[in-house]
Amino acid sequence: MNFFSYLNSDDISYVHQSSLEILEEVGLQVRNEKARKRFAEHGAIVNHETEIVRLPATVVEKYRALVPPTITLRGRDPAFDVTFPRELPVFATASSAPDIVDPVSGVTRRSRSDDIARIAHLVNELPGFDVFSISTLADDAPRDQFSLTRFYAALKNCVKPCRTSVYNIREAEQVIKLGELIAGSKEAFWERPFINFGYCAVVSPLTMDFDSTDTLMYFAENGITAYGTIAPMGGLSTPLTLPGMLVIMNAEWLAAATLAQMSRAGTAQIYNFLPVFADMRDGAYAPGAIEVGMMNSAVCQMARFYNVPAGGYLGLTNSKVADAQAGFEKGMSPLMGAMSGADFIVMGGLQDALMTFDFGQATIDNEIAMMIRRVREGFGFSKEAASVKEIKETGPAGMFAANPATLEHMLTTSFMPELADRKLREHWELEGSSTIQQRALNKAYDILSVSNPVALDPDVDARIRAEFDGLVAGDAKLQQGWKRLDIGSNEPQRERRPNRRRKKQRL
Amino acid sequence: MNFFSYLNSDDISYVHQSSLEILEEVGLQVRNEKARKRFAEHGAIVNHETEIVRLPATVVEKYRALVPPTITLRGRDPAFDVTFPRELPVFATASSAPDIVDPVSGVTRRSRSDDIARIAHLVNELPGFDVFSISTLADDAPRDQFSLTRFYAALKNCVKPCRTSVYNIREAEQVIKLGELIAGSKEAFWERPFINFGYCAVVSPLTMDFDSTDTLMYFAENGITAYGTIAPMGGLSTPLTLPGMLVIMNAEWLAAATLAQMSRAGTAQIYNFLPVFADMRDGAYAPGAIEVGMMNSAVCQMARFYNVPAGGYLGLTNSKVADAQAGFEKGMSPLMGAMSGADFIVMGGLQDALMTFDFGQATIDNEIAMMIRRVREGFGFSKEAASVKEIKETGPAGMFAANPATLEHMLTTSFMPELADRKLREHWELEGSSTIQQRALNKAYDILSVSNPVALDPDVDARIRAEFDGLVAGDAKLQQGWKRLDIGSNEPQRERRPNRRRKKQRL
Repeated sequence: MNFFSYLNSDDISYVHQSSLEILEEVGLQVRNEKARKRFAEHGAIVNHETEIVRLPATVVEKYRALVPPTITLRGRDPAFDVTFPRELPVFATASSAPDIVDPVSGVTRRSRSDDIARIAHLVNELPGFDVFSISTLADDAPRDQFSLTRFYAALKNCVKPCRTSVYNIREAEQVIKLGELIAGSKEAFWERPFINFGYCAVVSPLTMDFDSTDTLMYFAENGITAYGTIAPMGGLSTPLTLPGMLVIMNAEWLAAATLAQMSRAGTAQIYNFLPVFADMRDGAYAPGAIEVGMMNSAVCQMARFYNVPAGGYLGLTNSKVADAQAGFEKGMSPLMGAMSGADFIVMGGLQDALMTFDFGQATIDNEIAMMIRRVREGFGFSKEAASVKEIKETGPAGMFAANPATLEHMLTTSFMPELADRKLREHWELEGSSTIQQRALNKAYDILSVSNPVALDPDVDARIRAEFDGLVAGDAKLQQGWKRLDIGSNEPQRERRPNRRRKKQRL
Repeated sequence: MNFFSYLNSDDISYVHQSSLEILEEVGLQVRNEKARKRFAEHGAIVNHETEIVRLPATVVEKYRALVPPTITLRGRDPAFDVTFPRELPVFATASSAPDIVDPVSGVTRRSRSDDIARIAHLVNELPGFDVFSISTLADDAPRDQFSLTRFYAALKNCVKPCRTSVYNIREAEQVIKLGELIAGSKEAFWERPFINFGYCAVVSPLTMDFDSTDTLMYFAENGITAYGTIAPMGGLSTPLTLPGMLVIMNAEWLAAATLAQMSRAGTAQIYNFLPVFADMRDGAYAPGAIEVGMMNSAVCQMARFYNVPAGGYLGLTNSKVADAQAGFEKGMSPLMGAMSGADFIVMGGLQDALMTFDFGQATIDNEIAMMIRRVREGFGFSKEAASVKEIKETGPAGMFAANPATLEHMLTTSFMPELADRKLREHWELEGSSTIQQRALNKAYDILSVSNPVALDPDVDARIRAEFDGLVAGDAKLQQGWKRLDIGSNEPQRERRPNRRRKKQRL
């Protein structure tokens, strides 16, 4: 398949060359002294007083060429490790919402570590998600165990790659200690370090802050899997044009990639962004806007130019509920990314502009991810699939239903949704006229009401709890009071009345 | 921009060649004698007993080459005529639902002519729709005025191109008479025939029925704008593979195009389909499935090969309500078509697999159409838009909000939705925690509660009513009892409190 693209090769060159020019002439403000020194040692022109670091094009070109073409995110179970680019995009949940829609009351509240445990269990079971980027913060985390709490609840209940950011190196070390305890030993962990970190590589425009830059260098030095995200706000922290935002993002990514390679050559990266334009009517943060998908399309092209994996936050609705707005905002920008060749799509579970997690939304998003996967699986063109012989044999006014080939392709031609309703109206009404959100909540309930088969071994858990005083429980027990809604099963209708209402073909 | 594509040029050739082979060796069953004779007169091999018409490849190649590269759909007001392909896709509502969700009771009921009048008024005002494909049937139509009733209510209230199918030539003649009365004279109408028809070109597999084929020839002979749609059901009326469905659809389109050109050389056509796979778990009709978008992508490629406009029914949800399912099914397949180069996207207003029209859904779909239009408007790459000078001048840690360029691009960079909510949660809750469906219904109310400025001139209307005894009223008066919901305005929030809850950049 040929991906959709906006830019021609001249455009791409221009973005690259302009980025080099900006980094060389204007540079970045780097608020971390160690980073400034590292830049200086490797050929940058540094003014420690103004904190401005200017990067000669030759330096950037030298280091960005060291970025490897693939990245591997590892899970507690190696069977779930993902290396990409691969044929299908890798899907992740979106992370770090401060709030959650309580599945019992339906009211939004601060999220807690037990929520993370349940979400981890859910994500582990949903086939659409390859990576669990930890969906929420944890309001109940002990003060000195903030990131530890989040990773503990996640890793305890999910064997897929888990990933989030930490505030500083102290937090990272605590999380890595957790990893070593889970692995059984320091050596076992470092043989296959299955904890993945994120960081905010650059604060637009052209600024590296202290902590993020500190962790960036720390991860690279120690060979820990981590990748940055650059999240500008067009019209405030970048020009208010798509090309202008692309240029500044690209310059920023090059600077961060350069520092990572200076820290350790061959450090894997993702060309990864969350490019949002402000709604200029009132300055609202609008990650649900279609322009996020359009920017991602250009991101995919630049990533191919640099031969690194293309990633991005997509499908981030501004809606506070799983209504039609959430549906089209969730579906459209990730599809746009996928059709542009995105390798890594961060899109699941959040509402209200990354502020709130919702169990129903996450389960709906899983189905959207499966649809997008179907798109990338391809059309399956072959002479055999073109079925010319079958068409000739079946002939005019014939019927294909009973053909052996039909039986053979029954389960593979179409993606078969679990949540999308395709029933006759009469059946749907009989079962309670449900919305997909209600069916999705029931599916989450069905998963979470069974105890988690991949929960951490109790002995391992005891070792962890002995190490960290006051650690949260981190168990994925079904939230008290959560009841299954009485709206029938999610199965398609098995008995089908003759469809008397199917209208004549009058289009 | 470069469109997404699944097929390479060998695949396209193979589809074309196989289609020719099928038409030559197996042919079609043609149930209309006049059509069989016309085929025979132009070189086809016809068996009048079996009704099988076989088309030598040379015959098909000769006539399909006569299909013009563009088509024009005309409206009552010539300012709304659309000729395509053009840079942006042409959007139409989807047509002919038997039912409507009553905007007052919320309950589904049979649709009537007064509903068509209101929908026509609404569509006339919604900028996302270029063409009003008449959304519903009319349960109150007098027996001998079925299609006349639908066209009358539509044309009376909408100056954009109106279009639907008719049962037979008698109906078509009645509708054309209506057109002549509106135009003021026969001559005036035929100078710019602003009524557009549809027909079901071929019933899959490979069958031409009596009435559709009759109208196809009638439209072509008389130079009336009309285009066919082929609507197979994969696994029943076509092979259960995407390539197999494409081959049979393509053969069918070539046959219909050939007959149209034999009827009048240069008859404009659209390469237009509604390709739906049955859900093989229970045979459900699943136009909301993503495979409809995938098929459309291949349709776009074949249309470019034949140098004719590419069209299709897309965004046809199976959901019965405007929930997240309706949202992603409405958004994803039309976007897929648009990114594959679709010229004509039929997508607005219907739910429940084309069975039901909903005012809220139509208004939501208008906004989806506007988003897709934004995607096709393009990235706007230029050296000026890349803003390198502005980036350098603003510098690290600078602020772009006050730059003159920001002011200049304020209204053009991003699509600004009316219905998609981007408010802070506190504001949204204060205004009633609305869904987009509720806001959409209010927008429809706001449009329909103002009297329609484009309603037919009363004198013209009197002439029409004198001609057709017992004609329905056809007025777009707001349905009695329809009240605006108390959920605030659809405006973005004007006063913005400092966003204390906007979380730190922790991705």
